Amino acid sequence: MAGRNYIFDTIKSVFKTFGYAQIDTPAMENLSTLLGKYGEEGDKLLFRILNSGDAFGKVNFDSFKDSDGAVNSVALSKEVCEKGLRYDLTVPFARYVVQHQNEISFPFKRFQIQPVWRADRPQKGRYREFYQCDVDVIGSNSQLNELELVQIVDKVFALLDVRVLVKINNRKVLTGFAEVCGFPDKVVDITVAIDKLDKIGLDAVKDEMREKGLTESAIAVIEQILALSGSTAEKIASMRSLMNGGSASGLVSETGLKGLDELEELFGLIDAAGISSPVEIDLSLARGLNYYTGAIFEVKALDFAIGSICGGGRYDNLTGIFGLPGMSGVGISFGADRIYDVLSGLDKFPKGLKSSTTLLFANMGVDEARYVLPVAKALRDRGVAVEVYPESSKLKKQFDYADRKNIPFLSITGANEMEAGKINVKNLVSGEQKVFEKADIESIMDFLAL
Amino acid sequence: MAGRNYIFDTIKSVFKTFGYAQIDTPAMENLSTLLGKYGEEGDKLLFRILNSGDAFGKVNFDSFKDSDGAVNSVALSKEVCEKGLRYDLTVPFARYVVQHQNEISFPFKRFQIQPVWRADRPQKGRYREFYQCDVDVIGSNSQLNELELVQIVDKVFALLDVRVLVKINNRKVLTGFAEVCGFPDKVVDITVAIDKLDKIGLDAVKDEMREKGLTESAIAVIEQILALSGSTAEKIASMRSLMNGGSASGLVSETGLKGLDELEELFGLIDAAGISSPVEIDLSLARGLNYYTGAIFEVKALDFAIGSICGGGRYDNLTGIFGLPGMSGVGISFGADRIYDVLSGLDKFPKGLKSSTTLLFANMGVDEARYVLPVAKALRDRGVAVEVYPESSKLKKQFDYADRKNIPFLSITGANEMEAGKINVKNLVSGEQKVFEKADIESIMDFLAL
Repeated sequence: MAGRNYIFDTIKSVFKTFGYAQIDTPAMENLSTLLGKYGEEGDKLLFRILNSGDAFGKVNFDSFKDSDGAVNSVALSKEVCEKGLRYDLTVPFARYVVQHQNEISFPFKRFQIQPVWRADRPQKGRYREFYQCDVDVIGSNSQLNELELVQIVDKVFALLDVRVLVKINNRKVLTGFAEVCGFPDKVVDITVAIDKLDKIGLDAVKDEMREKGLTESAIAVIEQILALSGSTAEKIASMRSLMNGGSASGLVSETGLKGLDELEELFGLIDAAGISSPVEIDLSLARGLNYYTGAIFEVKALDFAIGSICGGGRYDNLTGIFGLPGMSGVGISFGADRIYDVLSGLDKFPKGLKSSTTLLFANMGVDEARYVLPVAKALRDRGVAVEVYPESSKLKKQFDYADRKNIPFLSITGANEMEAGKINVKNLVSGEQKVFEKADIESIMDFLAL
Repeated sequence: MAGRNYIFDTIKSVFKTFGYAQIDTPAMENLSTLLGKYGEEGDKLLFRILNSGDAFGKVNFDSFKDSDGAVNSVALSKEVCEKGLRYDLTVPFARYVVQHQNEISFPFKRFQIQPVWRADRPQKGRYREFYQCDVDVIGSNSQLNELELVQIVDKVFALLDVRVLVKINNRKVLTGFAEVCGFPDKVVDITVAIDKLDKIGLDAVKDEMREKGLTESAIAVIEQILALSGSTAEKIASMRSLMNGGSASGLVSETGLKGLDELEELFGLIDAAGISSPVEIDLSLARGLNYYTGAIFEVKALDFAIGSICGGGRYDNLTGIFGLPGMSGVGISFGADRIYDVLSGLDKFPKGLKSSTTLLFANMGVDEARYVLPVAKALRDRGVAVEVYPESSKLKKQFDYADRKNIPFLSITGANEMEAGKINVKNLVSGEQKVFEKADIESIMDFLAL
């Protein structure tokens, strides 16, 4: 938990300076809330809770058998399970917003750090239980919200001392691609192909678009867009011209132009606010297309090879499915497990994170233990983590305990020190040893370098 | 979460100064780990997770029917559910200690703050999901561990500014009651009766013991013990005499005398360490008898009527059931929900806990928003929670937002201030308003009283 708490505490401290409030939602949601929100595959990965009490008492099993006598597990599980474990934080958040819409002050800024559960086959990097860490603002269309998320990302990784690249795209611009190349209904196919540019290269992307039925002239328009280079302002200007009839097709995309307006506004705000991390437009950035409707974000560590460590975007109708339409929101999710791997890989966890205790008082007997207790208390009252070894075991055993727990300071205060009113403290790293007046807590604090 | 986090953060800060490390265990445990640990009633209250995949595909339903054709839900649920949600933090902790015994440094000091789930009928003060907050040390018999828990309780409630009474008893002394009154096999009956002394009075307690088969002379011995008064030292001395053959029965209880030794040692340590809260022996204190084997603790708020807000004790064989016998431990659990009620009832939550934001910059337009962004950033970098209202809505709406979120400071920095290079800040509580140089962040900080 030490490393995990370090990450969460850092992220939370930043969320708070932006006025986001933490909420928790229950682990269990009604299955009716969860089913159908994550696709067919997601439905299968939901953990279902057996109804309490006599769950099977009133079930007519024959009615759940197919014509060949096989039991339909899916149908029967719906009969005996009303609740499931949350699969992500987004759907419970949407349910929460709709349920509490009359108590919430919009724009509503919340964050949520909780485990989620998926009935996946466990493997490296994929767990049945893992933490998500989401921050969202809902009920405002302003690009200032997008800016705020970029600011949060920038600050979090500055505090974690990890250099990152923030990549931004806009779902409307991707729609613009499809419109100006003359295949407005193929936006998903086009984006899925473009999304692979990094991995498979331009030729393979073009092949895939051919397979999906795009014409050579349409592909040429997309190639033209992907070849755009220059600064962010130059890229936006070139795209604006292409979306405004300047491409080989001569077609205009109003949606694409709207997306460019949003990008331009966002980058203007990013300049005004002062962001330390590099932020760039990535036209091949796609992410969960069916879901997002405006800005899309992805964050990569610059000095460590791993997938994106943070991502998100704007969605225009998250709560509509629960009966509250027209509520636009934007959010990002921090990938806590990957961030953990990055900090481990780059050795960026603070030193001493794993040693929870600063000073161990060895136990030299009942009277000696009583003698050091007030000193331990005084140090603890000043915030120092102090242990008094509970048993007067052999010193070797107590040394081993300090060693295994990485405790840097050991006090072996025995009968002699007690008689003289002293406290003995040894720095186990440097070997330096000092003797203090029992009452001189401040000097002990200095020696502990605190 | 604001109030809950305040309690947890306070408790955690204290745990850490005593060198306890936080662990988390997964929400799901194998049902074989959970079943049979909480009694028959507890088994019924376990939430069971339906096996993933084709849970019912291979089930022969006929084999789960009784002779009258009714389905045996309990047996069938064992067939289709391998996992359940944790019911408390103790059993998962015991499982964890046994599983990781070769990596753990004993004595092992851990705390755990996580939700638990019980399939109870929800009602006021009883929830299907609620937090437990446990701290334990396992692998040491020393009374210094008991002392440490008392110190932790004392410090936590001092920080929360709640006056408490710490009540202590010892399971061995309760066994001594039964032994010296001549009914060593009736320790549970006797203690269950004594436990009700506060509620039903001495006469009713005596009636109950009569019903359980105790003789009048046995009851007289117990009455003699319960009538003991005086200081802690006097109580212990009187009991020692009674347990050592000095009661009407003349019987000696070695176990009872051992319990008195432990109590005496613990109170000696409490004196040496310096505890601010009153700590007293309560001979009628029982708590989950089947479980504890030594000290028993209970903490009551002195200024607020509610049940115990913290409790625990020593157990000698928690891990034995999982194959690691002879491992003694002692722990306490903080009742977070009740502590929340106490803090609410006594109005002891810090002011401003619910207002997550200190300063709101009203949004007077795109240019004005850009103008204040660097100021907002500078304040956030100094730890102040600042919001920039995302939409340039009517001022009334922005005021309402500040009001509903209890934001104490509002900046209405418009075109005039912008032109003059100024920032305007108003204290919404006092009405005082001031104008600052845009770059003079320190003066703004002073005005925010931070």
